[in-house]
Amino acid sequence: MKTTAIVMNEPGELEVQEITIPDVGPDDVLLRVEVTGICGTDVHMYNGGMDLDFPVVPGHEFTGVIEEVGENVERDSKGTEIREGDNLSVVPAMDNDGTDWYSRNMPGRPRLSENADRFGFDNVADQYAGGMSKYVVLPPKSFYYKLPEDVPPELGALVEPISVGMHAFERSMQPGHPHIREGFGVGQSVAVQGAGPIGLFAIASAKAAGAGQIIAIDAIDERLQLASAFGATDLVNLTEYEADELITTVKELTAGNVGPDIVIEAAGVPTAVEQGIELPHDGGTFVEVGHFAYNGEAEINPTRIVQKELDVLGSLAYPPTQFESAIALIDQLQDEVPFGDLFN
Amino acid sequence: MKTTAIVMNEPGELEVQEITIPDVGPDDVLLRVEVTGICGTDVHMYNGGMDLDFPVVPGHEFTGVIEEVGENVERDSKGTEIREGDNLSVVPAMDNDGTDWYSRNMPGRPRLSENADRFGFDNVADQYAGGMSKYVVLPPKSFYYKLPEDVPPELGALVEPISVGMHAFERSMQPGHPHIREGFGVGQSVAVQGAGPIGLFAIASAKAAGAGQIIAIDAIDERLQLASAFGATDLVNLTEYEADELITTVKELTAGNVGPDIVIEAAGVPTAVEQGIELPHDGGTFVEVGHFAYNGEAEINPTRIVQKELDVLGSLAYPPTQFESAIALIDQLQDEVPFGDLFN
Amino acid sequence: MKTTAIVMNEPGELEVQEITIPDVGPDDVLLRVEVTGICGTDVHMYNGGMDLDFPVVPGHEFTGVIEEVGENVERDSKGTEIREGDNLSVVPAMDNDGTDWYSRNMPGRPRLSENADRFGFDNVADQYAGGMSKYVVLPPKSFYYKLPEDVPPELGALVEPISVGMHAFERSMQPGHPHIREGFGVGQSVAVQGAGPIGLFAIASAKAAGAGQIIAIDAIDERLQLASAFGATDLVNLTEYEADELITTVKELTAGNVGPDIVIEAAGVPTAVEQGIELPHDGGTFVEVGHFAYNGEAEINPTRIVQKELDVLGSLAYPPTQFESAIALIDQLQDEVPFGDLFN
Amino acid sequence: MKTTAIVMNEPGELEVQEITIPDVGPDDVLLRVEVTGICGTDVHMYNGGMDLDFPVVPGHEFTGVIEEVGENVERDSKGTEIREGDNLSVVPAMDNDGTDWYSRNMPGRPRLSENADRFGFDNVADQYAGGMSKYVVLPPKSFYYKLPEDVPPELGALVEPISVGMHAFERSMQPGHPHIREGFGVGQSVAVQGAGPIGLFAIASAKAAGAGQIIAIDAIDERLQLASAFGATDLVNLTEYEADELITTVKELTAGNVGPDIVIEAAGVPTAVEQGIELPHDGGTFVEVGHFAYNGEAEINPTRIVQKELDVLGSLAYPPTQFESAIALIDQLQDEVPFGDLFN
Ligand SMILES: NC(=O)c1ccc[n+]([C@@H]2O[C@H](COP(=O)([O-])OP(=O)(O)OC[C@H]3O[C@@H](n4cnc5c(N)ncnc54)[C@H](OP(=O)(O)O)[C@@H]3O)[C@@H](O)[C@H]2O)c1
Ligand SMILES: NC(=O)c1ccc[n+]([C@@H]2O[C@H](COP(=O)([O-])OP(=O)(O)OC[C@H]3O[C@@H](n4cnc5c(N)ncnc54)[C@H](OP(=O)(O)O)[C@@H]3O)[C@@H](O)[C@H]2O)c1
Ligand SMILES: NC(=O)c1ccc[n+]([C@@H]2O[C@H](COP(=O)([O-])OP(=O)(O)OC[C@H]3O[C@@H](n4cnc5c(N)ncnc54)[C@H](OP(=O)(O)O)[C@@H]3O)[C@@H](O)[C@H]2O)c1
Ligand SMILES: NC(=O)c1ccc[n+]([C@@H]2O[C@H](COP(=O)([O-])OP(=O)(O)OC[C@H]3O[C@@H](n4cnc5c(N)ncnc54)[C@H](OP(=O)(O)O)[C@@H]3O)[C@@H](O)[C@H]2O)c1
Ligand SMILES: [Zn+2]
Ligand SMILES: [Zn+2]
Ligand SMILES: [Zn+2]
Ligand SMILES: [Zn+2]
Repeated sequence: MKTTAIVMNEPGELEVQEITIPDVGPDDVLLRVEVTGICGTDVHMYNGGMDLDFPVVPGHEFTGVIEEVGENVERDSKGTEIREGDNLSVVPAMDNDGTDWYSRNMPGRPRLSENADRFGFDNVADQYAGGMSKYVVLPPKSFYYKLPEDVPPELGALVEPISVGMHAFERSMQPGHPHIREGFGVGQSVAVQGAGPIGLFAIASAKAAGAGQIIAIDAIDERLQLASAFGATDLVNLTEYEADELITTVKELTAGNVGPDIVIEAAGVPTAVEQGIELPHDGGTFVEVGHFAYNGEAEINPTRIVQKELDVLGSLAYPPTQFESAIALIDQLQDEVPFGDLFN
Repeated sequence: MKTTAIVMNEPGELEVQEITIPDVGPDDVLLRVEVTGICGTDVHMYNGGMDLDFPVVPGHEFTGVIEEVGENVERDSKGTEIREGDNLSVVPAMDNDGTDWYSRNMPGRPRLSENADRFGFDNVADQYAGGMSKYVVLPPKSFYYKLPEDVPPELGALVEPISVGMHAFERSMQPGHPHIREGFGVGQSVAVQGAGPIGLFAIASAKAAGAGQIIAIDAIDERLQLASAFGATDLVNLTEYEADELITTVKELTAGNVGPDIVIEAAGVPTAVEQGIELPHDGGTFVEVGHFAYNGEAEINPTRIVQKELDVLGSLAYPPTQFESAIALIDQLQDEVPFGDLFN
Repeated sequence: MKTTAIVMNEPGELEVQEITIPDVGPDDVLLRVEVTGICGTDVHMYNGGMDLDFPVVPGHEFTGVIEEVGENVERDSKGTEIREGDNLSVVPAMDNDGTDWYSRNMPGRPRLSENADRFGFDNVADQYAGGMSKYVVLPPKSFYYKLPEDVPPELGALVEPISVGMHAFERSMQPGHPHIREGFGVGQSVAVQGAGPIGLFAIASAKAAGAGQIIAIDAIDERLQLASAFGATDLVNLTEYEADELITTVKELTAGNVGPDIVIEAAGVPTAVEQGIELPHDGGTFVEVGHFAYNGEAEINPTRIVQKELDVLGSLAYPPTQFESAIALIDQLQDEVPFGDLFN
Repeated sequence: MKTTAIVMNEPGELEVQEITIPDVGPDDVLLRVEVTGICGTDVHMYNGGMDLDFPVVPGHEFTGVIEEVGENVERDSKGTEIREGDNLSVVPAMDNDGTDWYSRNMPGRPRLSENADRFGFDNVADQYAGGMSKYVVLPPKSFYYKLPEDVPPELGALVEPISVGMHAFERSMQPGHPHIREGFGVGQSVAVQGAGPIGLFAIASAKAAGAGQIIAIDAIDERLQLASAFGATDLVNLTEYEADELITTVKELTAGNVGPDIVIEAAGVPTAVEQGIELPHDGGTFVEVGHFAYNGEAEINPTRIVQKELDVLGSLAYPPTQFESAIALIDQLQDEVPFGDLFN
């Protein structure tokens, strides 16, 4: 079928065009896009920073309403029944084809496989448009999740970036023995460096999971105020402290002055990594999510990682199932947390 | 020093006496008991079901106010600063002496060691009274935790039984990979069999940790109403269903009709075990906490454990650190959950 | 293409026939079967115990030599390069189609999904023959692993049942903190109930992983001798003891007399389950693998699971990657362990 | 009692003296030291690099024969029965006093607590001598393990440094799901950077645990030969390659050319960290053990940790129970691995 879309013919060049997407088959769902978020990745793409096979219809953070459900389709990827008119949030990366080393050997980390088609990044000729298309066809190998009735549809476009922050937070849960502080549990303390969207979503994830203390660190007071609204219990403006003083300040906020159990670096600057490794108590966890893109080298003293017996855990995107938890998070926190403020 | 206490001279015989407890040393804390909970275990003791060295001052669920702080004591067991007038909740089991196999080899499960003195169960001659004493001296090898200012002191007596329900719930978090449903995460589904205190606390724990769906199962509607107030999202009165129908009913409440991710047996009757093993989806987790005391044998088909590739996890009491999380739970949920109703 | 195969037209009726299998495409591998193992499952099938869509070419434990490699195929499922003449061991279950709840939500446990084609169990019309065919075509969605040069091809037919025993053993490794005896590590103690093939392979797995003590329990001395050859360090003939005496005997073999860290039930009889739950030390692990098929109910006292704070873990078949470890196990142990004796 | 010892009065000054150690009480063991290892830490101490309360009797890697067993002592710390004449290996750090934040909150990582007395580092006035004393008294709060009869006593002095290498290796086992490559399992691949003692012991640990491939990386061929004797299957002399070429070379040794599952940095130089983070496949694990002491900063690109979704795990010393596994390792490998060569 034909639909209208904003096409990026090459980096820096956007154009409204009529494009061809697949006809809706019995195993597919036809989605009318309602909201598409734009993030740093789209800007990066526009600026030529991504090696893609153009032309592409951008938009990897999108939500929409079901226009048509193929006759064999009864449920979304979580198993919830769906029908015309339901709102769906769509995972950009589809199921990989199952044949590369990563999908065979590390099925728990689907994002490591590079054999997946992706809405918002694939060539228009492949007929997988992104969220900047009026309609998108969702094939069986794609992942889509119904939004609960009481969740406003526009929040559906936040499910993707929430998944990034939430996956980073969930990296800290391994190996699931919170009573000996090996893995996260209710009442533990979390510090988040950076109160941009990713940091805010990490904060909300910690709140949803029952963190007892959430320390937000940023350079801008307004962002810290937003962090507070997202669940931070303690706010630290880093511009008010010298380097060592910042570490001490954060530690002194925690019981026993030992430092937080978990620290999440969502600032994306090398200094934040250098500071972040000092923040958790010995035996704690440092999650690195902020450096998706290169932003310079960090000077690390490896002896600190040994002496603190630290877990430093990288976090890349999210598995599709993270959408289930991200939607649950919105559902639980939407009355308390001003998600809508992020659209301004 | 001398204090007044209710002494159980032998099972079935209680008497108010003046007893001797240690003088408060520089490493000790003197607690004036304010509230002491009574539970099935105390009844069991009174009925002669426990093999103890009487006379004993009962009371293992107690809270009080600090009357005196030894000069070397600055912090509670979590590291929070304490002073006279603060409210404390006290763990009945003290630190074991570190010399038996369990404390040497399984330090993450202190309750398995039997070399620990215990408030509420030890002989009065050992000078460790229980909560039915006016004063209790807390030596350095005991664990005590400050209640936050905004938590009403009487809730402190709930910290002990909450720890039982919460530890049961936290058993399901292992190994901490919620995105592949190996371990619990925000948005997952939990069913709790039995809406007595332990079940209610397991429900509240699941709520605090961000469960997306909490199914309470009990025989009495009033208890189910309480379960709802504690966080249950779905209520199932088992008396309304035949055996198999109950299983199907619970499964149909969950997305995909597969059954909940985690099932916690807090009913304490063998039938509940037989039903409970059927409830979780394949690859799910069944936590057994209800059978602290013998209540008959359950007839299990081991093939179901194989075919479902189930994790069946026993849960015994709690480690002392569970008090930290239990207090955090009260702090987070006290405005929503009617903890006080349990005192009636 | 055409090939010759033994076809089970219906339970109890085997016949040699010419059948059609797919032509070898550019993404396929053509295997000339060399050895096919027969196990209890085949007997079960022959006796009508399995609900299959007959006619079927049986044989799910097979190995063979590559006759032809499709032009796009370079590597086996582990990533090892392959060529004509190499020996392969083939996983009966292929990749599931990725659309059911289990494959979407529990990608780490592929066997829970029922949407997979299977060599040895599918209808001949589906063109997936089992190992009782002269030739088998391996499509890209199947899993096959190259045998190391120094492994005799006939041992390749053992990779499948070894995977069953090994997966059962590996269930005990969760959550990977052996130094506090949460999960298995070098030097720990394992007891295996039942010294049939599955038990023997569990024993060999424990040996390969560095167990310090492996206690084999069986009723027949000859089997215990074989267990010793497979790695058991202690042999217990259960017919020599009364019930409780058996438990005590096993416990007294272990350091501290506490009982083994891990117990694997590979006998498949309900009594073994009842005994097995008593064997591990408190806080230990009991793996249930023996009851693939129904063999009666076990009478369990749930209080023991609570008081021992046991992990009872069901083990169902294996994920395809278990073939990688099973082949590694053969490779490491073949000079010490008489795998060939199992063919008699 | 009196005994003779080598006393370090201050850094750089050693003297043979008669010292006082406690009389052997009913809960103690008297050990006649037989072998004491000297390592970099002793040299560091001698050179004034450690802030200790001198005079000290050095020696933290020691083994000896039991001269006298207190009447209440029946078993070693693992629970094995002991008697006069048995050989013991002694953990330098004793049980901490249980009162600091780390011993209360992280009982699974006893080394993080600083409240422990330590043989080999404490002031002579505290009466805890190190291995350079003729006799050492082992109080109940110390950890000591019987050597199996067939282990030559001198190997007992290796148990301590083996524990360092083994703990580093075991850090990679978390969370114990080897079949999805989350945690180590039989058949997986390990690379070890640095073939000094720590690296060699990490190699032997990987071998004992069933690694399928062990790649040793060092600058000196003789050390690589020793690595081979300790279990390495592939040897890489880093001086033969440019930086990037080294990475590629190691990756190409592994199946699928993806890189090893686990990399252990036991070289102790910053470049090794920089290289090491590149070596494992995406989603793999990098264990940092080499930088016990400061040796300069490493320049890390945090984006690599994100994009590879790496686990970087620091490893500090070992918990006392590591001695159990280290002794098991010697017991299992002593016929294959030339442990004795390390004494030259
Ligand atoms: N791992 C993944 O899969 C993934 C996916 C998406 C995004 N990301 C990354 O996540 C990072 C955060 O994204 P975002 O959209 O939230 O970015 P953002 O809006 O730029 O927010 C970052 C915040 O961190 C603050 N900051 C700077 N230095 C800091 C420090 N030392 N300590 C604490 N805060 C500091 C910044 O303050 P100033 O503005 O004043 O400097 C800013 O407020 C980005 O770098 C992005 O690349 C990762
Ligand atoms: N593991 C431990 O460390 C530990 C510690 C403390 C307590 N416990 C145990 O935990 C159990 C629960 O304690 P509690 O104080 O909450 O007990 P409780 O007040 O007796 O509550 C149990 C509830 O379960 C209901 N029930 C009975 N059969 C059921 C079934 N098949 N399915 C669902 N619900 C069912 C009961 O209903 P009816 O009253 O109508 O039968 C009752 O409402 C006790 O058995 C206790 O021994 C364990
Ligand atoms: N979970 C799975 O995915 C899976 C897959 C395949 C097979 N299996 C199951 O695994 C089980 C074992 O298979 P197998 O081929 O090894 O069977 P097997 O050859 O029958 O071996 C079982 C052994 O256990 C012995 N035994 C009986 N009672 C015992 C007890 N109480 N304690 C210890 N040993 C006892 C038997 O002795 P006697 O012969 O003297 O009774 C026999 O030697 C089977 O039941 C099978 O269904 C499970
Ligand atoms: N975490 C802990 O608790 C703990 C405890 C004890 C020791 N340690 C540390 O462990 C480290 C190793 O101890 P050790 O006694 O085995 O030391 P070692 O004998 O110095 O061995 C280190 C080896 O690494 C080699 N090497 C240097 N650069 C390398 C590179 N880029 N890649 C691979 N190998 C490289 C060295 O070769 P060259 O000699 O030619 O440079 C040397 O052979 C030490 O730094 C020590 O501080 C840690
Ligand atoms: Zn985005
Ligand atoms: Zn109680
Ligand atoms: Zn079979
Ligand atoms: Zn040393």
